[in-house]
Amino acid sequence: MTTAEEIRELGIRARAAAAELRPIPTEQKNKALEEIANSLEEMKDAIDAANAEDVKAAIENGLSAPMVDRLTLTPSRFASMVQGVRDIINLPDPVGEIIKEVSRPVGIEIRKVREPFGVIAVVFESRPNVFVDTAALCLKTSNAIILRGGREALRSNMALNEAVRAGLAKAGLPADAVQLVKTTDHAGVTELVRSVGLVDVAIPRGGERLITAMCEAALIPVLKHYKGVCHVYVDESADLEMALKVLDNSKVQRPSACNAAECLLLNEKIADQFMPMVEKWAEEKKVTLHKECDNPDYSYEYLSLDINVKKVKDINEAVKHINKYGSHHSDAIVTGDEAKAKAFLRDVDSAAVYWNVSTRFTDGAEFGMGAEIGISTDKLHARGPMGLEELTSYKYVVTGDGIIRP
Amino acid sequence: MTTAEEIRELGIRARAAAAELRPIPTEQKNKALEEIANSLEEMKDAIDAANAEDVKAAIENGLSAPMVDRLTLTPSRFASMVQGVRDIINLPDPVGEIIKEVSRPVGIEIRKVREPFGVIAVVFESRPNVFVDTAALCLKTSNAIILRGGREALRSNMALNEAVRAGLAKAGLPADAVQLVKTTDHAGVTELVRSVGLVDVAIPRGGERLITAMCEAALIPVLKHYKGVCHVYVDESADLEMALKVLDNSKVQRPSACNAAECLLLNEKIADQFMPMVEKWAEEKKVTLHKECDNPDYSYEYLSLDINVKKVKDINEAVKHINKYGSHHSDAIVTGDEAKAKAFLRDVDSAAVYWNVSTRFTDGAEFGMGAEIGISTDKLHARGPMGLEELTSYKYVVTGDGIIRP
Repeated sequence: MTTAEEIRELGIRARAAAAELRPIPTEQKNKALEEIANSLEEMKDAIDAANAEDVKAAIENGLSAPMVDRLTLTPSRFASMVQGVRDIINLPDPVGEIIKEVSRPVGIEIRKVREPFGVIAVVFESRPNVFVDTAALCLKTSNAIILRGGREALRSNMALNEAVRAGLAKAGLPADAVQLVKTTDHAGVTELVRSVGLVDVAIPRGGERLITAMCEAALIPVLKHYKGVCHVYVDESADLEMALKVLDNSKVQRPSACNAAECLLLNEKIADQFMPMVEKWAEEKKVTLHKECDNPDYSYEYLSLDINVKKVKDINEAVKHINKYGSHHSDAIVTGDEAKAKAFLRDVDSAAVYWNVSTRFTDGAEFGMGAEIGISTDKLHARGPMGLEELTSYKYVVTGDGIIRP
Repeated sequence: MTTAEEIRELGIRARAAAAELRPIPTEQKNKALEEIANSLEEMKDAIDAANAEDVKAAIENGLSAPMVDRLTLTPSRFASMVQGVRDIINLPDPVGEIIKEVSRPVGIEIRKVREPFGVIAVVFESRPNVFVDTAALCLKTSNAIILRGGREALRSNMALNEAVRAGLAKAGLPADAVQLVKTTDHAGVTELVRSVGLVDVAIPRGGERLITAMCEAALIPVLKHYKGVCHVYVDESADLEMALKVLDNSKVQRPSACNAAECLLLNEKIADQFMPMVEKWAEEKKVTLHKECDNPDYSYEYLSLDINVKKVKDINEAVKHINKYGSHHSDAIVTGDEAKAKAFLRDVDSAAVYWNVSTRFTDGAEFGMGAEIGISTDKLHARGPMGLEELTSYKYVVTGDGIIRP
């Protein structure tokens, strides 16, 4: 079977499974989630063995230490992956929710009802837990899912696939609601995003190269998360202690996160006061400051204890810099001036904008969504953290008593 | 200047105009709409002259009669185009609307606020009034727009472009909020949909070939409307008089519309009673019935007084047929059985589903949206009629008092 044939076969099965899933009530989907969690626990030994083989091969093939780390299903990662499935049981089911209701004078009732997409393709790299996380989110929203992982994680993903499908079958749901692409040549990704009519949406969970390749090949919509080049702007009227606190949290709490700050912009009027505080903080926290004289790349995502620092004349220059060099992800202003804050919050063209708050809050759990499939830097459909609602579409349901258009 | 250079130049100007538009209050946008309407009326002679030249050239070049008709700005089309701009003044402005508000225990307030996309590209064919319709909708939603029309309408579009931009300038708004692509080679379309960072969304307003070409080339999201292969399913428990009335309206009222029915499915249990009624109706209304024995193409969009007719065993076969051969646009069931109606409304995977109502209601105005930029057959972002709200994205605005992530 060629890769194209495999993808087509998976697509047809997924489409059929999606139709079967649609009428399944919430309780049965929750039961399936419980069965999946149980099944993962029961099959833990086989999953661990498969993962150990992947890790061994990765080391032998000379993969980098961070990649080997991402690939490894440690006991605590395994436990939190299983707990993640159980947590989704308690989240509200968005499918069937009536978003809007309108009665029209002609005698029809129009309801806008939340619906599953149908079939979602998720392409991910390294981390095997993404298989389980995304499968559970798609199941809760009545979507069938086709997963395509990295070749270095194939054994782990196959073991997880088996466990998840066993759980589905136990709950009386179609096992084909969750499927793994087993060929791992690049053609698989291309075929997936060109499966018009079989796949409704593709979601990349990986780096910039993967995302660009998928968008380039895609004929179906792609919901994507580019990099996070986030800013903290310290205005002239800022409480400087608060500014330092927000800066510290935005940069240092978890530098490898996409919502960590990569650039400090400071108003030149407070530079003489604030820069010494920043220098002292940088020394204490081992943060490297890249100043204007270093001519840094302002679009670079460090993901490390590095930060660009730039003085700006005023808030307008700050907003322009952010919209030009940032990645439209998460940007904060620290100021005591409400008018300036409002202008910043309105004019910065990013998924999340913050006033006297750390950029680190851009996250499904922190936003109260309960779970997250990613953070969208797109503006179409979903922007910012994507939870269960963002995995749904809608339809218009129109009823009447033999009503015709005049 | 090459086409690529022209598109890049337009994109940079549009991006700057979008930033200028963002803080403009509703009243000033409405004033600009009024100025645009006035400007169109004032420049009517020049627009008519340009349009007459386009029409003359089209006839000389042997364009088909329907194409020449679509190209012609008749006095009544001109008047309704101008009225369309004035009508948008009275519609509510969706920008800035607070969609959701959440207070989190950590001490932050999160507001999900409706935002413009930024820059929208609209690619359209023949009808010059689309220029004005879409420009007005984008302006009301604070989006800058780049328009690319058919080459046969270039003179008309250039005259309309001048009038609209004059109106914008009179109201103190950036004229670059509305721009026309002046080169009409195919490269213009390709460049537009590859303008990552300059254009946020592309909307085709044209036939299947244009849409496919745009999706194939696109690196930016495309909001699209494929064909409308719509169905009326008459169930065994239908009131047959009502069924005929719904069928008649769905097929005959405006056969060239995308929401007109292209296929009648009827339950075999009522075929003996209902088919003679259908035959009589078809004869009276000059509708050609394409029956199973004719082996018709069930995915074909006739847009004429033709309709496929197929007997089905039960509602399940009807749903399967619709999901397989339809275009996920608009589909109706006529039945007296509520359980069957509910199953149909849930299981048919279309933008709009109808119970005892004509498919012809899938329309922005009929749905109470006031205006429509198109009907989406996609599931991402917008499904069904797209009004002003569907031309917006959102952002998360987060405020607090020096709050950091624990």
